[in-house]
Amino acid sequence: MKVITTINEMQNEILKHKGSGQSIGFVPTMGFLHEGHLTLISKARKENDIVVLSIFVNPLQFGPKEDFSTYPRDFDRDRALAEAEKADYLFYPSVEEMYPEEPSVKVIVQERTEVLCGKSRPGHFDGVATVITKLFHIVMPTRAYFGKKDAQQVAVIDGLISDLNFPVQLIPVDIVREADGLAKSSRNVNLLPEERLQAPAIYLSLEKAKKAIENGEQNPHILTSMIKELITSETNGEIDYVEMLSYPQLKSVEKIEGTIIIAIAVKFSKVRLIDNMIIAID
Amino acid sequence: MKVITTINEMQNEILKHKGSGQSIGFVPTMGFLHEGHLTLISKARKENDIVVLSIFVNPLQFGPKEDFSTYPRDFDRDRALAEAEKADYLFYPSVEEMYPEEPSVKVIVQERTEVLCGKSRPGHFDGVATVITKLFHIVMPTRAYFGKKDAQQVAVIDGLISDLNFPVQLIPVDIVREADGLAKSSRNVNLLPEERLQAPAIYLSLEKAKKAIENGEQNPHILTSMIKELITSETNGEIDYVEMLSYPQLKSVEKIEGTIIIAIAVKFSKVRLIDNMIIAID
Repeated sequence: MKVITTINEMQNEILKHKGSGQSIGFVPTMGFLHEGHLTLISKARKENDIVVLSIFVNPLQFGPKEDFSTYPRDFDRDRALAEAEKADYLFYPSVEEMYPEEPSVKVIVQERTEVLCGKSRPGHFDGVATVITKLFHIVMPTRAYFGKKDAQQVAVIDGLISDLNFPVQLIPVDIVREADGLAKSSRNVNLLPEERLQAPAIYLSLEKAKKAIENGEQNPHILTSMIKELITSETNGEIDYVEMLSYPQLKSVEKIEGTIIIAIAVKFSKVRLIDNMIIAID
Repeated sequence: MKVITTINEMQNEILKHKGSGQSIGFVPTMGFLHEGHLTLISKARKENDIVVLSIFVNPLQFGPKEDFSTYPRDFDRDRALAEAEKADYLFYPSVEEMYPEEPSVKVIVQERTEVLCGKSRPGHFDGVATVITKLFHIVMPTRAYFGKKDAQQVAVIDGLISDLNFPVQLIPVDIVREADGLAKSSRNVNLLPEERLQAPAIYLSLEKAKKAIENGEQNPHILTSMIKELITSETNGEIDYVEMLSYPQLKSVEKIEGTIIIAIAVKFSKVRLIDNMIIAID
């Protein structure tokens, strides 16, 4: 595996591979890799000639009060994991390499952003869309792999690719969970021990809502109350939101039908967790 | 030459060429081709394996009071000209193909836009940057050819490519002029006969300013007055602007030094003409 830190070198390597007809699988990450990421790399490895992993904690997508500086980083561990998953390239640019100055050209997203996490993070998805645009131009992937855990991000990137005609196939990959159901995340390390024990209640509440829907419940308000009650009684966390929306359009629904997402965010003492379930109703 | 009207077919053709290592030269236009465009195609032909010309009058870059509906169009003539210049592909999508709905993702440009034509055309360069981003993703050019006549557009696309890391080389091409010096433009057909006779005064004023600079004049205000006087006395046109700026940064200058652009816009009865000269001072 080759570690590359400059945009120019990365583009030159990729152009060689593309010129000989090889496909490129791309897994963009902010590092501190966990099993969720490894699943993405492993899937990319099966489906492409060349696999590129990027690690870049993108300042543009963090708000002024968000955790850019405390976001966990461990490059040596990440490199070993990527190598074990047989990635061909690890693209690891500095902030100065990606943004030598405040960019005067930006990509802005005007749909699918004013709900869920986007609502409380103004500009967040503009930062995501801008960095993904840059990374797509640097890595020129045939296929790009994103975890469904951040389902709003997947929906926004789906819109980015189709509105701007990127020659990239988006591959959304299922959420990877701990044995007790907690969705894997780099941020889980910031849970206190007792919070770690409580956190699986988020997943249990999603499962409970899913079963209720399968049993015929079509009222999103009843389902939302059911979820809130379970999380409130089982954890010390503070519910940020419980939302039911059409997917991937992310519009609110008054009746559970078609394909919907149930998405949850809960604040614990040092960390805010998100989880979701996408459900297709027959 | 193959005429292609869908994004999907264009991307598939290009991917085949790129997969066998061929270079792609791209000339994006709004059609009604003149010698300026043909020079771009001819240069692209010399420097690339495959040449793609696009014709698309982009509604996103026209303001509500601008000439989108009266912008001249003549597809059959354009096709014959492109074929004669040995383009391989003519990409000719409809507005519905490019914008099936109002795009929710846009590219915005925050530098180099608030001067020259951009000043009086709010949103114009966002529309240009958005459509060029789409076209670059559809045609995936190795090299893209733009005429220096729209020097601000060249400066903005230079910023777009470098800020978003497009794997595209920008090739700016010199202005092509009529025998009497008038810069070629699709819009020249809208000049009245007497205006057509007067219009070369714009170029003559640029030449006069250039000679004055070569003779040591360093004061932009004196040069600007000289240009305005000549255009006012020789034409019935109304001067929109005469500006001297650093190039490609497009910042105003108080002394003529480094590389500068002198740019002029003049309104005639039915059409507004632009011209410019980029001068590198030793």
